[in-house]
Amino acid sequence: MITDTNREDLSRRNFFKKTAQYSVGAIAAASVLSPVKMRADDPAIMEEKHWGTTLGDPVTKNVYGIPSAYEHNVVRRYTKLLASGNYEASIAVSPIQSLSGIITPNGLFFSRSHGGTAHIDPNEHRLMIHGLVEKPIVLTMEELKRYPSVTRIHFIECPANGGPEWRGPQFNSIQFAKGFMSCAEWTGVYIKDIIADLGLKPDAKWMLAEGMDSSHMGRTIPIDKVLDDAMVVWGQNGEAWRPEQGYPIRLLVPGWEGNLCVKWLGRLEFASEPFYAKEETSKYTALLPSGKAIQHFYANEVNSVITNPCPENHWKDMKKGDMIEIEGLAWSGMGTIEGVDISFDGGKNWVEAPLKGLVLSRAWTRFSYMYKYEGKPLLLSSRARDDAGHIQPSVKQERDAVGVEGVYHRNGVHTWEVTAKGEVNNVQILS
Amino acid sequence: MITDTNREDLSRRNFFKKTAQYSVGAIAAASVLSPVKMRADDPAIMEEKHWGTTLGDPVTKNVYGIPSAYEHNVVRRYTKLLASGNYEASIAVSPIQSLSGIITPNGLFFSRSHGGTAHIDPNEHRLMIHGLVEKPIVLTMEELKRYPSVTRIHFIECPANGGPEWRGPQFNSIQFAKGFMSCAEWTGVYIKDIIADLGLKPDAKWMLAEGMDSSHMGRTIPIDKVLDDAMVVWGQNGEAWRPEQGYPIRLLVPGWEGNLCVKWLGRLEFASEPFYAKEETSKYTALLPSGKAIQHFYANEVNSVITNPCPENHWKDMKKGDMIEIEGLAWSGMGTIEGVDISFDGGKNWVEAPLKGLVLSRAWTRFSYMYKYEGKPLLLSSRARDDAGHIQPSVKQERDAVGVEGVYHRNGVHTWEVTAKGEVNNVQILS
Repeated sequence: MITDTNREDLSRRNFFKKTAQYSVGAIAAASVLSPVKMRADDPAIMEEKHWGTTLGDPVTKNVYGIPSAYEHNVVRRYTKLLASGNYEASIAVSPIQSLSGIITPNGLFFSRSHGGTAHIDPNEHRLMIHGLVEKPIVLTMEELKRYPSVTRIHFIECPANGGPEWRGPQFNSIQFAKGFMSCAEWTGVYIKDIIADLGLKPDAKWMLAEGMDSSHMGRTIPIDKVLDDAMVVWGQNGEAWRPEQGYPIRLLVPGWEGNLCVKWLGRLEFASEPFYAKEETSKYTALLPSGKAIQHFYANEVNSVITNPCPENHWKDMKKGDMIEIEGLAWSGMGTIEGVDISFDGGKNWVEAPLKGLVLSRAWTRFSYMYKYEGKPLLLSSRARDDAGHIQPSVKQERDAVGVEGVYHRNGVHTWEVTAKGEVNNVQILS
Repeated sequence: MITDTNREDLSRRNFFKKTAQYSVGAIAAASVLSPVKMRADDPAIMEEKHWGTTLGDPVTKNVYGIPSAYEHNVVRRYTKLLASGNYEASIAVSPIQSLSGIITPNGLFFSRSHGGTAHIDPNEHRLMIHGLVEKPIVLTMEELKRYPSVTRIHFIECPANGGPEWRGPQFNSIQFAKGFMSCAEWTGVYIKDIIADLGLKPDAKWMLAEGMDSSHMGRTIPIDKVLDDAMVVWGQNGEAWRPEQGYPIRLLVPGWEGNLCVKWLGRLEFASEPFYAKEETSKYTALLPSGKAIQHFYANEVNSVITNPCPENHWKDMKKGDMIEIEGLAWSGMGTIEGVDISFDGGKNWVEAPLKGLVLSRAWTRFSYMYKYEGKPLLLSSRARDDAGHIQPSVKQERDAVGVEGVYHRNGVHTWEVTAKGEVNNVQILS
C-alpha cells in the first residue's frame, strides 16, 4: 500500500469509513489496554481541530520556551504549615507526581530559602576561599569556570522531606508529603581540584560554606566529604542556576542534606573544628525522646515513594484485567539504589519492582512494576535498599529507634491506600 | 579555630584586615589560575551588596521558575536565512555556547516547525495506529501512558545542522553554525511495546508518522528502526513537552534526523512501501553534483564541535601559562562516541581529548582538554569517532565525496581560528 499524507485521502474521517471492518471484538485481546472501541462517535477523532487548519505561532515567539497552558497545574506549591511567619523563608515543593524520568526541570525544582530569593549580579559576585589553606583566593565567576568542570546527576533533598508526618499522615498529597526534593544534572568544579591549587593545611578538618543572601546561611562540612565529591556548581540541567536555586553558584554536597548545599555561595572557610553556625545548632539537629539531640548527621537515608498511583494520580477508568504501570522513585544519599520491593498488603508480602533507566549513585532511580488491575483495595508500599547495605525501616522500626519528636531524616516505608474505586489516600502502617 | 558566621566577626572587610599577611607572591604558584591578587581594592569584595542585607523574594513568587535576568542573552535565536518566507515555518537555534553537561533545558531546546507552533488540548488529542496491524487502535493520552514507560537520554539534530556552510563559513557564531540540535532526557513508550499488543502484519515494512499541526508533517520510517528503539514520547527532562516541541506527544527516532521525530503526533500507519510524503520528496533528500539526489538516509553522522572557545566564548584576560579547559560536544546518530581528538594546527597533528561525564548511545558526549595558554594563534579543530567505526571526515574528504550542493548531513571537521588576542573566528580548512 503506497499512499501519501494528503488529507483528502487519509483524513481521520476517511480512516473510519475505510476501516469499519475492524470490529470491537478484534481489539479485545490487547494485553495492556481494555478493549478499545474505535470511537467513531468521538469528536476528538472525527473532527479536524483548529490547530490542524490554522498557521501556528512563530518558532521564536518565545526565545525562552514555556510550558503548555494545559500544564498550568504542574507547579511548585507552598504551605503555611512549613513557614515560620513569612513566605520568604520557607519551602516550595516539587510536583513529583507529574515528573517523568530522573531529571527535574529547573522551573519545577523544589526550593527552600532562609531569607528569600536573592537576585545576585554575577559580575559583582566573588567566591572567597580562605582559612586553613596555604594560599587564600578570591575568584570571579569567570575565573572559577577555568577549572576543569565536572557534570554529575544527583538529587538534592531537604532533610525535612516527609518530616511533618512523624506522628501520622498530614497531607493527602505526594507533592506535600514527599516533594521536598528534586534531581538534576549539575555542572561545576570539585572543591578538591581548587584545593589542589591552594594547598590545604594539615589541621583543616572542617569547611564552612556561607551564602551571600540576606540569611547568610552557613553550614559546616567535614573535610573527608569536601575532598570526596563536594562541588561548587553553576550549571543545572545545562543552563545557569535559577535565582531561587542560588544563582550564580551553589555548593553541592551529593547525597547529603539539601541545606548543606549552600545557595548564593560566597565564602568557603577551612578550620580545625566545626563552626556551629546558627542553622546547625538551632536547626538541622534531631531531637530524641530523651530531650537530647543528634548533631552532625548529614546523609539522606535510603528512601522511596510510589508516584503512580498516588493521591494526585488516582487510577481512573480502569477495568479488571487492565494492565497498569506502578511506578516510583528511590534514592539514597549513601550510595546507589540496589533494589526496590513493593507490597500490595501494607508490608506483609513483598515483590521486587525492577529498576529502570539510569541507576546512578546519589541520584533518583525509577522503579516499575506492571500490575494487572483487580478493582480491589490495596495497601501499596515500596521499600528501597542501597549498595551500602541500607534498607528502609518500617514505620514501627523507625519509631522504636528514634521516636516521633524529630523533624528530619524520616525514611520509614511509605504506604498509599488504594480504594476499590482506584482512589488513593496517604496512610501509615504502624505494625 | 571555632568561629561562627556572624557578620560582625567574619565580614569580607574583616577578612581582609585579618589576612593582610597573605602576599600576592604566595598565590603565584596556582596551577590553574594566574597569580590572583586578593583584590582589597575590589568593591565586589569590600562592600556588602544589597542582596545580602534585604529580604529576598518569597519562595513561591514563581510557581514555575524562570532564569535570572542576568542570563537574558542565553536564548534561542532565529535567522531569516533559514526561513522560507515566514517566521512560522523555520528554526530557532539553541545557544550551545552557553550550555553545560549534556542536558539542554527545555526552554532552550532548538525548535523547527513546518507550520508554526500548534497549541493542542491534550484532552482532545488522540493517537491513531493503523494500516498493516491486526488491531488498529485509537488512544487517549491517558491510555497511552498506561504502557510501560521508558526513559532515555538522546540528542535530536536537524540534518541541516551546519548545512548553510557547505561552501564556506556563513556565521561567525557557534549558535547559528551548529545550534540546530539539543539533547534531553525523554520518557515515553517503545512503539514495539504497543505493536506487541496490536499485532504487526508480515508485509508491514514502513511506518508513516503524521503530525496534527497545520503542516501535517509526515515522514516514513523503516520498520527495523521502528521495532528497534523508536518511541512515542510525552516527557522531556521530567515534564511535559513544550508546545513548540510537539505537545502533547512526539515521535522519537534516536539518532536519526530530527524531522523524523514528528511533533504533535496524531497518526502512525504501517504499510509495505515507503509513503513518499511531501517532506521526504521535496525536502530531506541530498542533491549530488550529478543532479541526482540520495533518498532514504536517516542517521545523523558522527560529529563534534568545540564549545569553549568559540566565537561567542572568546578567551579573555588570559595570560601566558594560564590553564584553560578546552571543551566540546561530540555525538553520533549511529552509536556511542568512542573518542575525540583535537588539533591546534588545523588538522595536521592530533591529540586525544578525554571524554567526561556520561557517555551514552546517540547522546551528546562532552570532551575536555586542559590547555596551557600560550597567547599564540591556533587553528583549533575536533574530530570524533564512534563505536560503529565512523570518524569525522576532513572538509576536503567530505567535498570530494558528496560535493557542495547538499544541505544535509554535513559532518566535516569544524575549525575555529583563535587569534593571538584570544578572539575566535569560524573558518574552514580545505586541505
